[in-house]
Amino acid sequence: VSRHAKSQALFERACKVIPGGIYGHKQPGFGLPGSAPYYATKSEGARFWDVDGNEYIDFLCGWGPVVLGHAHPAVEAAVREEMAKGTCPDLPGPAMVNLAEHMVDKISVADWAVFAKNGIDVTTWAIRLAREHTNRPKIVVAHGAYHGAAAWCTTHPGGVTEEERSDVLRMTFNDASSLEKLVEANPEQIAGVILTPYHHPTYRPQQLPDDDFWSDVRRICNRAGIVLVLDDIRVGFRLAKAGSHAHFAIDPDLVCYSKALANGHPIAALVGRQKMAAAAERVFMSGTYWFSSAPMVAALTTLQIIERDAVPTKIAVLGERFKSGLLEITHRHGTSGRVTGPPCAPYLTFDEDPDLFLNQELSRELFAHGIYLHPHHHAFISAAHTEADIDKTLEVVDHCLPTAIERAASIKRNWP
Amino acid sequence: VSRHAKSQALFERACKVIPGGIYGHKQPGFGLPGSAPYYATKSEGARFWDVDGNEYIDFLCGWGPVVLGHAHPAVEAAVREEMAKGTCPDLPGPAMVNLAEHMVDKISVADWAVFAKNGIDVTTWAIRLAREHTNRPKIVVAHGAYHGAAAWCTTHPGGVTEEERSDVLRMTFNDASSLEKLVEANPEQIAGVILTPYHHPTYRPQQLPDDDFWSDVRRICNRAGIVLVLDDIRVGFRLAKAGSHAHFAIDPDLVCYSKALANGHPIAALVGRQKMAAAAERVFMSGTYWFSSAPMVAALTTLQIIERDAVPTKIAVLGERFKSGLLEITHRHGTSGRVTGPPCAPYLTFDEDPDLFLNQELSRELFAHGIYLHPHHHAFISAAHTEADIDKTLEVVDHCLPTAIERAASIKRNWP
Repeated sequence: VSRHAKSQALFERACKVIPGGIYGHKQPGFGLPGSAPYYATKSEGARFWDVDGNEYIDFLCGWGPVVLGHAHPAVEAAVREEMAKGTCPDLPGPAMVNLAEHMVDKISVADWAVFAKNGIDVTTWAIRLAREHTNRPKIVVAHGAYHGAAAWCTTHPGGVTEEERSDVLRMTFNDASSLEKLVEANPEQIAGVILTPYHHPTYRPQQLPDDDFWSDVRRICNRAGIVLVLDDIRVGFRLAKAGSHAHFAIDPDLVCYSKALANGHPIAALVGRQKMAAAAERVFMSGTYWFSSAPMVAALTTLQIIERDAVPTKIAVLGERFKSGLLEITHRHGTSGRVTGPPCAPYLTFDEDPDLFLNQELSRELFAHGIYLHPHHHAFISAAHTEADIDKTLEVVDHCLPTAIERAASIKRNWP
Repeated sequence: VSRHAKSQALFERACKVIPGGIYGHKQPGFGLPGSAPYYATKSEGARFWDVDGNEYIDFLCGWGPVVLGHAHPAVEAAVREEMAKGTCPDLPGPAMVNLAEHMVDKISVADWAVFAKNGIDVTTWAIRLAREHTNRPKIVVAHGAYHGAAAWCTTHPGGVTEEERSDVLRMTFNDASSLEKLVEANPEQIAGVILTPYHHPTYRPQQLPDDDFWSDVRRICNRAGIVLVLDDIRVGFRLAKAGSHAHFAIDPDLVCYSKALANGHPIAALVGRQKMAAAAERVFMSGTYWFSSAPMVAALTTLQIIERDAVPTKIAVLGERFKSGLLEITHRHGTSGRVTGPPCAPYLTFDEDPDLFLNQELSRELFAHGIYLHPHHHAFISAAHTEADIDKTLEVVDHCLPTAIERAASIKRNWP
């Protein structure tokens, strides 16, 4: 019987009632169909269990939100207490004010905060504020960046019209001159630039910002009257307790948060400078569930624990241990393994394998040995991971890598 | 001391850290600033308590999601049990398949279902499917309709570019000939028509569909190869257990649900005909929190209770009682009160008062007497309301209406 028999059976049922069975970033095709589990039944701390009962050390952390560990007791207790008071009130609760005050207090660029549900809600809100503030139409994004699945930014054009994207321009991350050229070619037309703190293109090594990149971007934006939006959804509060701009010395006008903000509860936040507040009052954004208090209480509790326990520091130490272990092992086995991105969100790739065959074969082996390390997406480390989890994972990598290397070489030899 | 002293104080704190203090549909300006509470602390059954401790019979039901009553014990128990297994897993859970199977089983037009968080996620998903399916750009919406705050449909243009809306055309609800004209003027350009089952424009009486409207719309769509999208977010599962299209004999290709689907837990669903499944596989939509099981379990539990307890029938009976009482009272007091929309979502207006002065003065009085009936938005009835709640409310309306009539007349006399 297959290790994933129940996942497969459930997926077959799903395919009859859901187009593709599972959609979006969780679609099996983005992972390793046939070798990966499709459904989970329980997640706790740094582990999850699939529907077949297999246990995994989890290096995806719910695709980023889980920064303290799955089902963190203090966060869940606060959520349960708040949910007992009702989940969908007619009016906001005090938690909304408390969370906004906390974020304004702790985040240097935040003079105000607003809340929504999805990351895409706040990246879209941000570009709308930039347009309203400047009364200009165009938005600059980086090639290969992911800011969500909305028409203006999706990397998948199905069902999107050209008109919806006609005001979106593309620059190159770590190349401020590419922004400069867009500014010159579109005088007084560019409302905003939206960038992630560092570049994490899908299927590719990550790029930390070059020394002068962010100060050059800020200078260009200042000179041309462009609103600088930081999309800090991916690692905000995981990399640094006061936001990633503090870590990289970035000086944005607006910052988007979501993933690690509430340890897995559905909320997104947009914070901004005072100069953007008038535009924020004029732009109408809303959603039925945006005012529910439980995710706000989850966020406040999560942010307080992140600060109290110096979580980003703890995660960075674990991430460095993971990174150096991965480098030692992969190099000892004769590959040119490279780990990119910050230690809290490391991605292992192999320079000699840009098509990621070795990533895939390694993940296939790791899945079978109870390690959930995605082949096409960087990992996330959480505060629930232990040194023992990291060391155990490295042992398994050491054990699995020779088989993976051999299989990847065989696939490449037989590739048409 | 004001009845809303704590609401006011909290709002003043909020204004320092949130642009406008409260944004979106909950902004005080949409209600009665100064006379309405701004913050709630607890909601239970058909009641909520504001931050000053005032109790209200709630006729807004969280702006629609709360169909069984706030904090419904069975729904909350199911959610707590599911959340104990983790709130943000790497993979979907069995609940996603169970919910999709249930909806496909119970909803006549649903051959498949997909899930997101906000209503706007699925109305946007629907128009993208229509565009992908037809390879045409244009979308028809009704004048005065609300499908969410996205660029393509928002009624508030702040920060939205003309290009983003250039492919959106407007027809008139209950006037199929207005659609016919758009089809003639835009041959083979219209991908989809999105309409609510009945028309509920803000600040205006609601309009139920005329006898032939929906069959005419369907016929026009068939002839022109246009995808018919039903936005059933407002009263789906409150009006009829199998969706509002069953109630009005509408034959859509895609249907959007959110509000009453999960009794207040954050989820939205798009269901569709088999012919739309291929487009659904090609269009990429995703969100970090879309795969959390707890709201799916809430939805399944809510739908089962709606069916088991014949909730729409119960609500319709209560709504009729409310409506006939309101008509009797308002007419007895010499006004031409009118109650529009279906009994589950009634809206009281006065023909002689199109500017809603009397609505405002009546709500002002009702708020002070513990009845939360919004002046500018139709009400919602839930299964937690009792005949006694309705009768109590009618008594209070009877008591408050003379004062409201006098004040509204005085305001009109003094209006510049």
